[in-house]
Amino acid sequence: MHIINSQRDVQDMARGAVVLGTGGGGDPYIGQLLVAAEVAKGNFPKIISCDEVGDDDFVLSFAGTGAPTILLENLLSRDAMLRVLARAEAHFGRRVDALLCMEIGGANSMMPLALGAISGVPVLDADGIGRAMPKLNMTTFSIYGCPVTPSILMEERGNVVTIEASDDVLAEEISRAAVIAMGAGAFCMMYPMTGKRARELALHGTVSQTLEIGRAIREGRESGNPFDNLLAYLNSWPERSAEIIFDGKIIDVTHEIRGGWHWGQARLQPLNGGDDECVIEIQNEYTVARINGRTVTIVPDLITILDRESAEPVTAEMLAYGQRVKVLSYSCDPVLRRPEALAVLGPRCFGFDEDFRPMEDLLGLRETQKVVG
Amino acid sequence: MHIINSQRDVQDMARGAVVLGTGGGGDPYIGQLLVAAEVAKGNFPKIISCDEVGDDDFVLSFAGTGAPTILLENLLSRDAMLRVLARAEAHFGRRVDALLCMEIGGANSMMPLALGAISGVPVLDADGIGRAMPKLNMTTFSIYGCPVTPSILMEERGNVVTIEASDDVLAEEISRAAVIAMGAGAFCMMYPMTGKRARELALHGTVSQTLEIGRAIREGRESGNPFDNLLAYLNSWPERSAEIIFDGKIIDVTHEIRGGWHWGQARLQPLNGGDDECVIEIQNEYTVARINGRTVTIVPDLITILDRESAEPVTAEMLAYGQRVKVLSYSCDPVLRRPEALAVLGPRCFGFDEDFRPMEDLLGLRETQKVVG
Repeated sequence: MHIINSQRDVQDMARGAVVLGTGGGGDPYIGQLLVAAEVAKGNFPKIISCDEVGDDDFVLSFAGTGAPTILLENLLSRDAMLRVLARAEAHFGRRVDALLCMEIGGANSMMPLALGAISGVPVLDADGIGRAMPKLNMTTFSIYGCPVTPSILMEERGNVVTIEASDDVLAEEISRAAVIAMGAGAFCMMYPMTGKRARELALHGTVSQTLEIGRAIREGRESGNPFDNLLAYLNSWPERSAEIIFDGKIIDVTHEIRGGWHWGQARLQPLNGGDDECVIEIQNEYTVARINGRTVTIVPDLITILDRESAEPVTAEMLAYGQRVKVLSYSCDPVLRRPEALAVLGPRCFGFDEDFRPMEDLLGLRETQKVVG
Repeated sequence: MHIINSQRDVQDMARGAVVLGTGGGGDPYIGQLLVAAEVAKGNFPKIISCDEVGDDDFVLSFAGTGAPTILLENLLSRDAMLRVLARAEAHFGRRVDALLCMEIGGANSMMPLALGAISGVPVLDADGIGRAMPKLNMTTFSIYGCPVTPSILMEERGNVVTIEASDDVLAEEISRAAVIAMGAGAFCMMYPMTGKRARELALHGTVSQTLEIGRAIREGRESGNPFDNLLAYLNSWPERSAEIIFDGKIIDVTHEIRGGWHWGQARLQPLNGGDDECVIEIQNEYTVARINGRTVTIVPDLITILDRESAEPVTAEMLAYGQRVKVLSYSCDPVLRRPEALAVLGPRCFGFDEDFRPMEDLLGLRETQKVVG
């Protein structure tokens, strides 16, 4: 399956990845450049559905880790990516049959596609979270029993670190420490698993979804209603809901880098005055949206801020005073709302003293639907 | 060669290792316990001279890294040490023919001996620095061209990190970060080299030296002059000088843990009043001694604080107000005074704005000798 057939597809996909990045996950720009360069040569990444992977196939997840700006500077190398793949195959003693995306939101949506295009290794139409998350162990893979390690971290000067961790929280901590020591940017090969395991644990269809989200926005622009088009697409998925929860301008935004995390807060008010205020907290990603102090969407449900004219998604780093935006609330994959998942990536894991509640409940969407239905 | 033949030898050796620890390097207590347990069973570590190792023999350095207190709690395991050795042999694809000590000062003096006694692998009578130093790359091995990595870090819960670094400063930084992430204590196998290389790069005879230093102090106590005995032994080495530079009591001592380092300062005054003041700076090890503001010994020359009656050496952690002590200045191995070594471990590497000067010059020992001679 070549779901990417043109440069426009690559651009659409990158846009969709920013929507699913929920403010974080890094800008897909670097991966987009790499994929675009391959597409220009006629090397399209081969994307296969989870039904097409063999039970015993060897599947590895590929990602860039560390600060996105460093990745941008250091990792733009076709050869470096091929070296990582070769190194991983030597380490595990077998050919990689398929690449998998750890997180489809943000920069790491494009990395497996870039390596897939360069190497010819197929990429599964799936990922481990359906959005962006700040830690390597925040995936359905880890939550449902496939460990992060053995993993390989590699960086352009030839520094290589392999990790076998006794648990995935430690795997995350060791990886983060090693990446920072290496200079804050490295390629990572991790989550070795069989094709059968990938089929069972991954969220299916999310690579296609990024393309379709980006396309919905672009086509909506052409016909003058990008938000209608985007919402129609997102709501067309079974068991998923999307809603614009605020329309206004940014009246204040704070950024702070602390403990290797991007912390911040954005405050929004309606365009034409009015006393309503929407506050969005940032911990790499947008983690909670509150309107007049009341929580309306909270992690792992997705919050995305988009330009109010073009519906271009805006990452947390790019937020600035005066921007006119709309705020999208999008329910996460139902699997992330289970107790075992919320124990790893629910609100309390981000320091919030409140339990997860689905955005449909917080926004009264289910009642509305009932009334309407 | 069984230079360790009794529990008394083990105790002497540990005492000598604290003298060479120059205030840091961790207390050899844990390694001492392990070696003593083996000696009690009749398993004496086999210590061989550098002339006995084969040119093509495979030599690995073995150390504990991280906070000494954590090492003490977590690493007291015979099985864990054997697992590290087995893991290293699997990683490098060959049998380890000899173990080498990275630094003879402090805790890591005993670790290769403990593993040697447990495994039967011979230990070279040599090390990479002749004292303690705070970083993995501060060795003659690294300075003269044998890289720290590939290396293996392993900790008791089964976390394993392998590192291949593009340079030794990065190797140190990655290792430190990984060890802290693992919980601040791990075994490390590093500096893979041939027997020929070990013979060329290591400082010879330093394992025996720890035993002989500890023995000189003990025997001196028996005859009532431990300091005379210690100085006579240290000065008997060619191209080495030792001198007591201060005799008094500790009137103030500060400790601070910052950036993973133990920083501090000890201030001493003569026992019976007088205005002289000796100030010793601590950065894990004792780095500089000044009397009335004038530098009298500076890193990499050794400074050791000893109890003024028993000549028992006192580590920086154990310094306390009111202790009655003597301060020993001991010239480092001449190879550490070369420009290429001072660039890695000289005063400026510890943030001092002064060049290295030999303790013989600072103390006027050479002139004295000339006059006397």
